[in-house]
Amino acid sequence: VTALPSGFTAVVANVGIKDASDDTTLLVADRPATAAAVFTRSRFAGPSVVLSRDHVGDGQARAVIVLSKNANVANGPDGIADAAEVVGLVADGLGCGASEVLIASTGVIGRRYPMERIRSGLPLVLAARRTAELEDLARGIMTTDTVPKTSSAMIGDGPAIVAGVAKGVGMIEPDMATMIAVIMTDADVGRDRLEAVFRSVVDRTFNCVSVDGDTSTSDSAFILASGAAGEVDDAAFERALSTVCTSLARQIAADGEGAETLIEVLVDGASSPAQARRVAKSIVNSPLVKTAVHGADPNWGRVAMAIGKCADDTDIDPESVVIRFGSTETYPTRLDESGLANLSAYLRGDEVVIHVSLGAGTHSATVWGCDLTEGYIRINADYTT
Amino acid sequence: VTALPSGFTAVVANVGIKDASDDTTLLVADRPATAAAVFTRSRFAGPSVVLSRDHVGDGQARAVIVLSKNANVANGPDGIADAAEVVGLVADGLGCGASEVLIASTGVIGRRYPMERIRSGLPLVLAARRTAELEDLARGIMTTDTVPKTSSAMIGDGPAIVAGVAKGVGMIEPDMATMIAVIMTDADVGRDRLEAVFRSVVDRTFNCVSVDGDTSTSDSAFILASGAAGEVDDAAFERALSTVCTSLARQIAADGEGAETLIEVLVDGASSPAQARRVAKSIVNSPLVKTAVHGADPNWGRVAMAIGKCADDTDIDPESVVIRFGSTETYPTRLDESGLANLSAYLRGDEVVIHVSLGAGTHSATVWGCDLTEGYIRINADYTT
Repeated sequence: VTALPSGFTAVVANVGIKDASDDTTLLVADRPATAAAVFTRSRFAGPSVVLSRDHVGDGQARAVIVLSKNANVANGPDGIADAAEVVGLVADGLGCGASEVLIASTGVIGRRYPMERIRSGLPLVLAARRTAELEDLARGIMTTDTVPKTSSAMIGDGPAIVAGVAKGVGMIEPDMATMIAVIMTDADVGRDRLEAVFRSVVDRTFNCVSVDGDTSTSDSAFILASGAAGEVDDAAFERALSTVCTSLARQIAADGEGAETLIEVLVDGASSPAQARRVAKSIVNSPLVKTAVHGADPNWGRVAMAIGKCADDTDIDPESVVIRFGSTETYPTRLDESGLANLSAYLRGDEVVIHVSLGAGTHSATVWGCDLTEGYIRINADYTT
Repeated sequence: VTALPSGFTAVVANVGIKDASDDTTLLVADRPATAAAVFTRSRFAGPSVVLSRDHVGDGQARAVIVLSKNANVANGPDGIADAAEVVGLVADGLGCGASEVLIASTGVIGRRYPMERIRSGLPLVLAARRTAELEDLARGIMTTDTVPKTSSAMIGDGPAIVAGVAKGVGMIEPDMATMIAVIMTDADVGRDRLEAVFRSVVDRTFNCVSVDGDTSTSDSAFILASGAAGEVDDAAFERALSTVCTSLARQIAADGEGAETLIEVLVDGASSPAQARRVAKSIVNSPLVKTAVHGADPNWGRVAMAIGKCADDTDIDPESVVIRFGSTETYPTRLDESGLANLSAYLRGDEVVIHVSLGAGTHSATVWGCDLTEGYIRINADYTT
C-alpha cells in the first residue's frame, strides 16, 4: 500500500534547508484528527518537541510539519521563536489554530533555521496541495538515512488501514521515543484509547531500537487518526499498529549508521519485564558484541560479559543462563570446531538473532540494533557541525 | 623509579598460555603483606575474582599470580577447580597457605587454562626467584595492550614509595574496578586504613576510566603493603597512591583499543557527586562524542545531546549549562569560523579536555576515555574466540 489512509493529504518539497532534496514534509488531515505523540526525554529537548508536546495535549491535530537537516536545538529564545513562526505559517495557510499544528525537526544541533527561505517557501508548499504518497513522506523526513522507511497494514479485514513513515539512523537509543515517526490511520479511534495504545506499542517497538546508545534531542513519534474509515475492532487496531511500528523499528535498526547486519536480541526467562529489557539492551548496545557480529565471530563470551554487566540483577545466575545464536546453543553447551564454523556463516547473514534465556523467571523482551562497523566511524567522524 | 618497593620480589615468565611472550606474573611479599582489593561487579565474574575476593577477606596476602590471555571465565566447575589448582601450586612453592595467594586472569572467555603446561611450568617460575622490575611486571600482565603501564611515587619525602602496574585496553567501563591493577607499597599501613584509602582512590581513578562502556568479567585491582619502609603520614600516603592510580588510569584510557586521543571529561557545577559522574560518563561513553573527537570536529551539539540523555536529572537546565573544549567556550557563547578552526586544531592533539559546567550545584567529577576509531572496529571484529 502506498496511498495514505483516507482523510489525509501530504506535500513534500524543498524550501532550502537541504541543497536540493526535499526537506519539508507537511501532512494534513481533512478535518481535525485525533492525535497522540511520544517524545524524547532529553533535558536538551528542542523547541519542536516543546511546542508539539503542548499542542498535542488536547488530543487533536490538523497537521504535522517536519523539517529535515536542522534540529533547531540549543538555539535559545531565537530557536523557540523560529519554531513558533513555522507553526504559525502552517496554521495561517491551513486556516486553523496554531495549537492544531505539530512540528518535528532533526539534523544539526545549534544552527538556526534559514528563516528567510522558510518564510518565502512555506506558503508555496501550502498552496501546492498535491498528494504525496507514503514513500514521498518517508523521503521528505530523511536526513542521513540511506533508505526511506514505510509500513502499512490493514486493520482486520479493512477497509481502515494504519500507515506510517519513520527516519533515523544514528543518535538512537530506546528511551520513550526515538527518531521521528509519523503514523496515520483512517480508523475512528477515541483520544484516550489512541494515546494508550500508541504509548504501549511505541514502548515495545521504537523504544526497543538502539543504534548507538545515544538519545536524540528531537525524537518524536506522532499518530493521527482521521476517522474517515469509521470504527474498528480495538484488538485488530492494536495488531495493525504493532505490525507497522515493528516493521519501521526493524527498518531503522537495519539502516543504522554504517550497519551491515540487523541484530535482534531476545531475552526470556527474566524475573521482570524491566530485567528482560535491561539485559537485552546491555547486549545490543555492547560495542564488543556489535563488533563480534560484524566480524562474524561467534564470541558468546562477549554476550556473557554483557549479561554480567547488569550487576544489580543479583538473581541472574551464570549457572542458569543459556546463550544461543539463532537456534544454536553456545553456552553452557559448547560447540566443536565445525559447529563454530557453521555459526560464523550464520553471523555473515543480513540478520542475526541472539537469544538469551536467564532462567530467573517468565518475562521476555525483544530489542533491535545493528553491528558496529568502520562505516559508523567514517560517517560520524566526518559529519560536520 | 623502576625498582619494586622494598619487601617485594617478582618473577615474570612464559608457561605456554601465550605463544612466546610472558604470560605469568608472580609478585611475592617477603613476609605476609597487608592487602586490599576491589573487583568487578559482573554477574559472570570468573573463578579468579571469586577466589581472590575470598582470600583477601582477612586483609593479608603473600603473593599475587596473574595469568594473561585466558580469562578462565564461564568454564563451570572445571574453571573453579583449575583456578584453585593454580593457587595451590603457588602456595606450595612459597610454603604459605592457599588463602594467602591472590589470583587474577584476563583474556578469552570460555576457554580452559592449558593446565598441563601450567603444572610443569609454574614450579620453574617459583624456583627462579629472579627479581623482575616494574616494567617487567607491566609487560607480563598485558594482553592486547600496546604499551606497558607503570607508575610510582614517593610518599612525602620518602623513603617509602607506592608503585603499580595495570593492564587493560577494551571491555572497560567504570563500575567498581576495571582491568587488572597491582599496586605495591613498602609503607606500613594498617589493614582497615589500606582498604578504605584504596577503595576511595580506586573510585576516583580506575572507576573513572571508560574505553567502551563494557565491563569485564575479570576486573581486579590489588594493593599490597609490605611495611618494610615503616610508618608514613596518612595524607602523604593517600596523595602518593592517588598519583599512581591516576597515572595508570590515564595510561589505560590513552591505550584504549584503537585510541588516538585521550579524552578527559570534567563536569562541575553538579548538584551531587553522582550527577557529576553520571553526566561525565554519558559524555565520555557517547560514540557520537568519541567519533567527533576522532574527526577533530568541535561538535558541541553532541556533548549537549549526551548531557540531555541524563533525562532523570531534572535539575539540569540547558539555560544554565556551559560547554567548553579545553578552555574555549562553545555553548552558550558561539564561536565564529576562525574560532571553530582553532578548536579543530586543538582536537587533533593527543589529549582533549571537555569541560561542562551544569550550573546546578557545587560538585564535580573527572573521567577519562578515548576516541572511537576504525582501529577499535578492526581489533574487535577480528579478535577471535
